[in-house]
Order: sequence, then structure tokens, then C-alpha cells
Amino acid sequence: MTDIAGQQKLRALDLDLRRRAAAVIPGGMYGHMSVTRLPPAYPQFYERSEGTTVWDVDGNEYVDFMCSFGPMILGYKHRRVEAAAAGQAAKGDTQPGPAPCMVELAELLVGRVAHADWAIFAKNGTDATTISLMIARAKTGRSKVLAAAGAYHGAAPWSTLRMDGVAPDERASLHYYEYNDAASVERAIEEAGAGEVAAIITSPFKHHAGFDEEEVDPAFARRLRALCDELGAALVMDEVRAGFRLNHGGSWEHLGVAPDLSAWSKAIANGYPLAAILGSGPYADAASRIFVTGSFWFQAVPMAAAVATLNALADEDAVAVMERAGSRLREGFEQVAREVGVPIRQTGPVQLPNLSFPGDTDFAKASAFSAAMLDRGVIVHPRHNWFLCAAHTDGDVDRFLEAAEDGLRAVLQCD
Amino acid sequence: MTDIAGQQKLRALDLDLRRRAAAVIPGGMYGHMSVTRLPPAYPQFYERSEGTTVWDVDGNEYVDFMCSFGPMILGYKHRRVEAAAAGQAAKGDTQPGPAPCMVELAELLVGRVAHADWAIFAKNGTDATTISLMIARAKTGRSKVLAAAGAYHGAAPWSTLRMDGVAPDERASLHYYEYNDAASVERAIEEAGAGEVAAIITSPFKHHAGFDEEEVDPAFARRLRALCDELGAALVMDEVRAGFRLNHGGSWEHLGVAPDLSAWSKAIANGYPLAAILGSGPYADAASRIFVTGSFWFQAVPMAAAVATLNALADEDAVAVMERAGSRLREGFEQVAREVGVPIRQTGPVQLPNLSFPGDTDFAKASAFSAAMLDRGVIVHPRHNWFLCAAHTDGDVDRFLEAAEDGLRAVLQCD
Repeated sequence: MTDIAGQQKLRALDLDLRRRAAAVIPGGMYGHMSVTRLPPAYPQFYERSEGTTVWDVDGNEYVDFMCSFGPMILGYKHRRVEAAAAGQAAKGDTQPGPAPCMVELAELLVGRVAHADWAIFAKNGTDATTISLMIARAKTGRSKVLAAAGAYHGAAPWSTLRMDGVAPDERASLHYYEYNDAASVERAIEEAGAGEVAAIITSPFKHHAGFDEEEVDPAFARRLRALCDELGAALVMDEVRAGFRLNHGGSWEHLGVAPDLSAWSKAIANGYPLAAILGSGPYADAASRIFVTGSFWFQAVPMAAAVATLNALADEDAVAVMERAGSRLREGFEQVAREVGVPIRQTGPVQLPNLSFPGDTDFAKASAFSAAMLDRGVIVHPRHNWFLCAAHTDGDVDRFLEAAEDGLRAVLQCD
Repeated sequence: MTDIAGQQKLRALDLDLRRRAAAVIPGGMYGHMSVTRLPPAYPQFYERSEGTTVWDVDGNEYVDFMCSFGPMILGYKHRRVEAAAAGQAAKGDTQPGPAPCMVELAELLVGRVAHADWAIFAKNGTDATTISLMIARAKTGRSKVLAAAGAYHGAAPWSTLRMDGVAPDERASLHYYEYNDAASVERAIEEAGAGEVAAIITSPFKHHAGFDEEEVDPAFARRLRALCDELGAALVMDEVRAGFRLNHGGSWEHLGVAPDLSAWSKAIANGYPLAAILGSGPYADAASRIFVTGSFWFQAVPMAAAVATLNALADEDAVAVMERAGSRLREGFEQVAREVGVPIRQTGPVQLPNLSFPGDTDFAKASAFSAAMLDRGVIVHPRHNWFLCAAHTDGDVDRFLEAAEDGLRAVLQCD
């Protein structure tokens, strides 16, 4: 246990940066990486990262189980990805047009993801979900979109979960269903008007931030596909969060359910900024008619990094590696919780696990756990799912489990 | 002059990549870097870039007067920017939180841009314009936004200039005025309802793609400011295209007209992917209430590159350098045109010049000019303004002027 004085000393640079940030960044920080509402032990600013290890600006070292909220799927500074990125950077990055690796990447994705016949690249996950809906609307000539209530499909006005700054009109064409509840989808279709539905957007499993995760009911997945077929609407899969962690291709391929369009980002280039919209042949013409672009969407380095990432994921059998590490963590954690005597709920796929404590509606226990884990050099978020990556070793999981004993003892003190 | 057979040989790799792209990318390419509707001489894929020189995949060399449509403001592979980016990359890029350079960059921008008291960072110019409107709406509690008809403020459904894929509701809160026409702004306010206007968005000068550029009428700029003050609405300046080419701070500072919010991207990090929203103090609280974020918005490398870019722009006196090179190009080009006997119209600031030919409504002359320039190793777009950068030398301008003589002779043959 670090003593209080020692801890304060080790946070001086972070606190100083926070003070400076508060003067020039609204609220001191914004978005999913703001720690404003997190335990004080949570560092805001980072100095360095390598493999599964990160160092905050005060030099404190952590095993990272957030993986930058998903992008790091092979670990920080993965040799093969960095080599590909450096090789492309030596030639060019943002240029007057794309580089050959753009075509290589599109071909690789079309070969990897079963439903995909083509690809469009962008920068943000939000770009990818938004463009998927634009393509669905261009194809169908309709406006309405059905989304799961509480699902996060990005931070654009149509999708953000906080209503500040959103004009009501911008969400007027959205209707909502409950994830895994087919009857609620049918009600939403009725509400929107069957002939008006351009798309149903969904995610590989239910991963609403702040809630337990829920695997998809295969019957629900099949029903979504059947409803889209009946309506002549697009089934849009938001793979931004889960993509390439559950499967090397699309996340529902094992169910035999193919979307028409899918939105990818986060892990696609192991931390380099890239998003992709993948689609089936019948949607190619609509995709060619919409006008979407961005100043950096043709950047070559992230595309070269994505090619290397996809190849490394396959060669390292990354999905299996993450599943194995995640299972070890889940089982070990369950045992530690039993031993310490703290009831926990671990939900969702082991590669993107979610922890909650029964009855912990104000996240007091989750915060105490996260704070204690940070003190012991392990980063886990109190209100968001965690992410495994292919670089997590048995040693990393052991470090989690050792810390978790103290983390759960901190939870005991909440009662 | 290259012979036809020689030229065809030098395009083989580009044509092969285009064939492959046509199979896996809708329409073969998309967005502003698609050459589908440009002269066949226009390369689609690039291999390498350095300073103001780029090489296409067939090894053909060009002096680039498009600067990747704006991002390259110091030239490709600028030593100081690359050193800063490499230094940060060796530490970390996408990490569990931002790096110290984020604060440094926000402080630098607040010091550089007169109206700015704070900064938020994102990836796309579209992110920056969209977030500016969200902040204006959050501050005012109103929905309506006024924009100039035909202006390009990004590729989101509310802003894209092509209606395919856009649900009418998504644009219901937009009303339009004519740039430089104060009476049309007043009509738009009446149409929207004075009490409903959250923001008026505008640009430093009129730069509608496919049209002659037009400098802002200072009286129009002042009237926009006065109207926003009367309405209690935000004046939003879209600096994405012009930012840092006309002035080291905001583009209207010489007019004494300050926006409340400004949107930046393109040139801010000399090609690294970054956007910024800058705002005045009274908008900070609203900015802290909206929820916006992106998986790569806290990437450290582009922020380190932006710090180096802003410092280099100041130290190299870049605005004056671009203005001098641009003036030399404009005057020299005018003289060449007189000599060859082709009427031309050069409009807009010399750092972002626009060329058109009187009566050339189908862009046939502009295309012939662009094609001939490409044959002679100079990249200029037939339907979009060009961009000067601080690396353009007298030699580059001379190469433009020599090529322009042949370019204009090709135009003569259009009649």
C-alpha cells in the first residue's frame, strides 16, 4: 500500500495539467476519456505506452484493461503494425489522393467479412454509423431508422445519448426498440410506418454503457433479418465497439445472420485513426451516390496500419488468444469474489467484459473497486466495459487477479 | 512533350489500381479526392511526397498546388513537424487518455486566435462545424441555424451539398442566406423566426466549389456580428478551408469582427488528422454540457504535430510567404494569359486562388487546362480552389507559369 503522502506526490503532474486544462478546455476535459466524474485516483494524462503497459504523466505504471476504449487490439506499439505504419509514413500519408494500400485494405476487408462486397473509409465510428444510415436512406428513398433505446451509436446529434445541443428535428426520423425484444421492434415499425423504414441499426450484443451486457438472442438476430427483408430495409450492424474481438469477420457470422451494411472503427488499425463502412453488392450504387468525405479520410498511414493489423490478428489467432485470456480473468475473478465474499456480476463476451455489483445503482462500489485497482496498477473503468487485447498475458491477468482481491476488499468497506 | 505511348505506359499502375478499386469501392472512389469526374490525366493514387513535390504510383513527378486540398500548409514532410510527431509517437499516440501536448495545444490556440478562450479537439472539419452548432444550440436553447446557400460546411447530412441519403428532417432547422447579402440574412431570420435562431454560420470569404471566389464585404461581416448580437445567437466561423492561410489567428481579425465559435481542421497539423472548435468564454458552459467524442480524438501525435505546425507557421512568417508566392503566381499567370490571348478570372485570396474561364459553364476549358498542366507536371484542380503553402518556392511558381503557357494553349483549342 502506498502511503497518502507518496500518492499525492505521484499525482502532481497530472493535477497540474488538470488545472491548466480547466482554463482552456470546457469542463476540463470532454467525451469518453474525461475522468471528471471518475474516482480521483484515475489519471487524466498519459506519458507512454507499450504492449499492455501504460504510464501516466507522473510515471505511475499500469496494466491497461481498457485498451484506449477498444482501439488497442494487439497491444501498444505492436511491432508489425508500427513497421507497416513507418514504411508508409516514409513515403507519404495525407497526399493529393489515396495510396495503393487503400485498395489493398478494401480487398482484405471484403475477403475477411462475409457480407461485405465493398468498403468506404472514414475517421470516426460516428462517421461509419452515420454513413451507413445515409446509404440505407439513399437506397430505399425512405427516412425512418430504428435503433435500440439506450444504445450508443456515436456522438452525432442523431446518436448522442445526451440531448444538450441537439435540435429535436435531427432525431425526428429515429424510432426506438428494446434490444433482444422482437415485439418491441414490431411496435417501432408500426410507429414509424412500415413503408417508411430505411434501416434497423443494431449491435452484436447489448453493450449500453452503465448497464450489464447481454448476449444477443439468436432468434432476435434472425427476426431482425427477416423484418428487414419484409420491409425492404437495411440491417445495419454497428461493429465499432466489438468488431474483430468476437470474430475475425462479422460478429454475427456464427449465427448465419448477415447485415446489409456494417460500421467499423476502433480496433481496425490498432490505434491509428480509421473507420470503415462495409456493404453488400445491392447497396453499392446507393453508396456511390451519397457525398461523404473528410480532409484526412484518404490518409495512407492508418490504412497501411489496418492492413498489418488485420494480417496480425489472423496470424496471431487473436480472437482465440483474447478469449482465453478473458476466460481466465472471468473465472479467476469469480473465484476471488467468492473468497472475499463480494457478489459480482460479470456479463458479456469475455473479450469485452462488464463488471457490476448488485444494487450498486450509484456506482459507489464500482468506483471504489476501480480506485483500488488503479492504486494497485490496474486500469479498469467503473462504468464502461473493459477490453482485452491479444497482448494480454497470463502475467497481466494474474496482476489483475491479485489487485482484485484488494479491489473487492475496498468494495466491502462501501457497505 | 511526352509521346502518347510513353504517357500510357506511365499510367499503367494507376489504371490497374483503379480497376481493382472499382471492384471493392463504390463508384471506384468517393469524396473530394475522387478523380472519376476529372480529366483522365489526373492521377488517382500517389506513391510519395516531399516538400511541394508529389509522385504518383507510376513515378510521375508533380509540383502540387492542391496541398492535399489544404492540409499541407508547410509542405510535405516538414522537418520540424515530423520531428515533433516522431517524438510523441515514440512515447504514445492513442492511449487511455490524452497526453500533455493536448493542453499545450489548447493554450497555444487560445493565445493565437483572438476570440478563443477555450478549445475542443476532434478529427474532421465536419466534426468541428457540427459541434459548433451543437454548442450554439445548447447555449441558446434554440434550434434554427442560418447558412449561406451553396456553402460547404462538411459532409454530414445537415451540411452535404448532395441530397442523396439525407432525411429531410435532418435539415429542417437550416435556413439559407446569400453570402455578402445582408438583406438576405434578414429575410432568413424572418423565415426562421428571430427568437428561434441559435447560430449564423459563415466562412472567411465565399469559396463555393465550382464558383468564382468572393472576398467578404467588411460591412457584411459587421452586419452578421450585429445581427447575432441582436438575436442573442452565435456567430460561427467555418475556418476549415481558409484557417491559418490568411492570418496567424482568426481570418476576420483584421476586420475587427470576432465570431463566438470557430471551426478548424485541414491545415492545423500539416496533414495529421485533427480538428478544433474554438470558442469565447460565454460559450464554455454550453460546450461542457454537450456530449461529443471519438475513438481517436485524444490521439497525441496529431496534437504534437499541431503544436509544431503553429510554431513553425509563426517562425517562418508563413502567411506572408504564401501571400508573396501567391501574388507572384497571380501576376505572372495574368501576364501569360494576356500573351497567349486567353481570358481568365483569378479570384479570392492569392493563398487560396480560384481560376475560371469566362463562359466555361461545363468546365471544358478548366478541364483542358488542368489536363495540360498535369502532363507538364503541375497539379491544379479544374473545379476547386488551389492551395499555396509556405514551402512553395519561386522555382515552383516558375514551373507553374511555364506549364501555364501550354495549359492555356490547350484551352485555345476548346473553342
